Amino acid sequence: MVAEHSAIGPGLAANLRVDGARLWKTLLEIGEIGATPGGGCRRLALTSEDRAARELFMGWAREAGAKISVDRIGNIFCRRAGSQDALPPVMLGSHLDTVPTGGKFDGALGVIAALEVLRTLEDRKIRTLAPIELVVWMNEEGSRFSPSMMGSAVFAGDLPFERALAIKDPGGTTVAAALAETGIAGEAPIGGRPVAAYLELHNEQGPILEAEGTQIGIVTGTFTARYFVATVTGEPAHVGPTPMEARRDALVGAAEAILAIDRIGRGFGPDGRSNAPHLEVYPNVRGVIPAEVKLSCDVRHADPTQVAAMEILLRSELAAIGARRGINISLEQYFQFGPMQFDAELVATFRDAARSLGYTHRDILTVAGHDTVPMRKICPSAMIFTPSIGGISHNEREFTSAAQAEAGCNVLLHAVLARTGVATA
Amino acid sequence: MVAEHSAIGPGLAANLRVDGARLWKTLLEIGEIGATPGGGCRRLALTSEDRAARELFMGWAREAGAKISVDRIGNIFCRRAGSQDALPPVMLGSHLDTVPTGGKFDGALGVIAALEVLRTLEDRKIRTLAPIELVVWMNEEGSRFSPSMMGSAVFAGDLPFERALAIKDPGGTTVAAALAETGIAGEAPIGGRPVAAYLELHNEQGPILEAEGTQIGIVTGTFTARYFVATVTGEPAHVGPTPMEARRDALVGAAEAILAIDRIGRGFGPDGRSNAPHLEVYPNVRGVIPAEVKLSCDVRHADPTQVAAMEILLRSELAAIGARRGINISLEQYFQFGPMQFDAELVATFRDAARSLGYTHRDILTVAGHDTVPMRKICPSAMIFTPSIGGISHNEREFTSAAQAEAGCNVLLHAVLARTGVATA
Repeated sequence: MVAEHSAIGPGLAANLRVDGARLWKTLLEIGEIGATPGGGCRRLALTSEDRAARELFMGWAREAGAKISVDRIGNIFCRRAGSQDALPPVMLGSHLDTVPTGGKFDGALGVIAALEVLRTLEDRKIRTLAPIELVVWMNEEGSRFSPSMMGSAVFAGDLPFERALAIKDPGGTTVAAALAETGIAGEAPIGGRPVAAYLELHNEQGPILEAEGTQIGIVTGTFTARYFVATVTGEPAHVGPTPMEARRDALVGAAEAILAIDRIGRGFGPDGRSNAPHLEVYPNVRGVIPAEVKLSCDVRHADPTQVAAMEILLRSELAAIGARRGINISLEQYFQFGPMQFDAELVATFRDAARSLGYTHRDILTVAGHDTVPMRKICPSAMIFTPSIGGISHNEREFTSAAQAEAGCNVLLHAVLARTGVATA
Repeated sequence: MVAEHSAIGPGLAANLRVDGARLWKTLLEIGEIGATPGGGCRRLALTSEDRAARELFMGWAREAGAKISVDRIGNIFCRRAGSQDALPPVMLGSHLDTVPTGGKFDGALGVIAALEVLRTLEDRKIRTLAPIELVVWMNEEGSRFSPSMMGSAVFAGDLPFERALAIKDPGGTTVAAALAETGIAGEAPIGGRPVAAYLELHNEQGPILEAEGTQIGIVTGTFTARYFVATVTGEPAHVGPTPMEARRDALVGAAEAILAIDRIGRGFGPDGRSNAPHLEVYPNVRGVIPAEVKLSCDVRHADPTQVAAMEILLRSELAAIGARRGINISLEQYFQFGPMQFDAELVATFRDAARSLGYTHRDILTVAGHDTVPMRKICPSAMIFTPSIGGISHNEREFTSAAQAEAGCNVLLHAVLARTGVATA
């Protein structure tokens, strides 16, 4: 571990802080790209807004002395050489894409905090032993092209490059075509090189830190989640003449399923979550009783045993609805996630940094997926959270204060330096 | 009224019948265009399948001696001259477009029955006093371009031509563009000329005739229907970290609304109908709790007073759901329909024809909209139903037997001749 060979000097460590005002100003500036009337952002992956934000970011990184490369799936790497530049880099970053009506903090905060770390090192002329790479992952949200965490998953070898290229958005455009059209794809090979560590700062997207008045969440691992598509098969019929009792309406069945799914999360205490946020109705026209609904849904819990119980309950509820309504409901799992532990040593590094900086902190699990999840397969990876006001996220009103962002960025800076080591002048 | 000036001779009337085998063969032949694996049809309005069916039909009408014109919205008129050709024409027809997964009878049966009437008159060299026009209305279903009954509504002056042209399908293509691209638009001016009467044969699309063993439904008028869009407004949030109790999920609210709407129709006896067949979810992505749902819904009943009661119940149910879930649900009426009476004299003509032919028949109301509805504004209009097996409709399994179709066609023939009068040789 690099951190064992060298450490940041005690005097420097005590004094070094990021420029919170600059961090905040830069964050708001990049938030202008794709800004929505409600104060949020719309920067779907591989769109002109995404490209504009990436260009702005790369310009800033270049000014801060970094050397830029973009890989073939569109991940950006901004490298600052270390004094022992052959060492594997310490990576820090997040993403710049957003959901369709998102906020200015999700992803952008982590990317701009990483930039502020770089700028602080430049200002103070601090040379690290290991090189640093800021990284902007392509398509973390998965709103336009599913699945989420696409760029980091391809980098980590979790999703084959060719398969990612063939994924289509709802309009039929492939990732390959969108990469080419926006000019976002680069020339660098994808992954295949050692990474010393991956560190990410992200807003919590939940209410815990703010409710407790805690400044920093030390993310020790993930919730467990299982993701399904429920296919509800009824019978098309004319909406007018068909008697009510003769109907096998797939959307009525899906409505019962949506309510059942909502109840499941509520029944599993504060750590239970369940969702049915996406559906496709066929034929979805006004004159025809729906014949088929495909409903995406998931169950999540901090405790994997409880997730298994939630799935059993989900299957039994759907079977009962199908039997009662005379429709077929099948459930297919398409993804699962967790339980995962982030790297214990790197988690301890974050915890030490928060403590030495005097910030209140607590251990926390992430319910959402983040780029740290695929990255943990190829290197020590961990992340921290800053509070989200009211727990609001994936919403234009998402907010983290300047002071909260600054505190998180200071923790990131110190954790990064603990991993890179600092070259004595 | 033409029918008062002249009548079909008693001898001829007693003997004249359509060619049931030819009717059936022709109906199945046109059903091959857009045929689906499940035995139905997919011929959405203003597509290449729609055009192919129209071309085939016009060829047959031309062979049967008709003179074809197509108006600027794409309605087809196949004219057979009368001996007093300056008299306003008696029109008979229906439509050739289908819902996305429709049957081979809805619309096509009426159009091919009209053609069989024409062929029978040609075979027998029967000259009518008033001219006859077979008509194929453009876009009756409204599945691709809403609203339904578009061509007949424009013809009857119920929908302004320019407004119809600007209507878009879900992909953003306008009616104007689709008319031009398919070459379906003609040169003839739209409407603005007197029509003596409009007669339509259609399959029932409901179970009543078949259940009773009745051959012919004499449609005396319509159900009453009110159509709404319910807008459910929640709050977007991240599906993962957001606690269940902090959610304002628009799709969960919409699911409750769908179930409430389904219950309303069931609570109003055999003549009550309620539907929520179409919805749009925003953002409809897997990572975001739905912020908004637009749900199309309607309530229908034979008795207009009951429809008013159903609307009151609908509004109160939606308000209760909104209050309980902390979401806003607004309800906007976008259309209403009925109660309408079809022309009493023409209804009696149909009834007399069925009786004199020895067919079992009953009076019935239509719950579905048909082109007869807008046409009744500009001329005496009425329609008959033939049975639909099992009441199945807007479904690939829709079926009317050859014998049932033949009986309906004979009634249509005799009713038409009663209206046109027959020239003595």
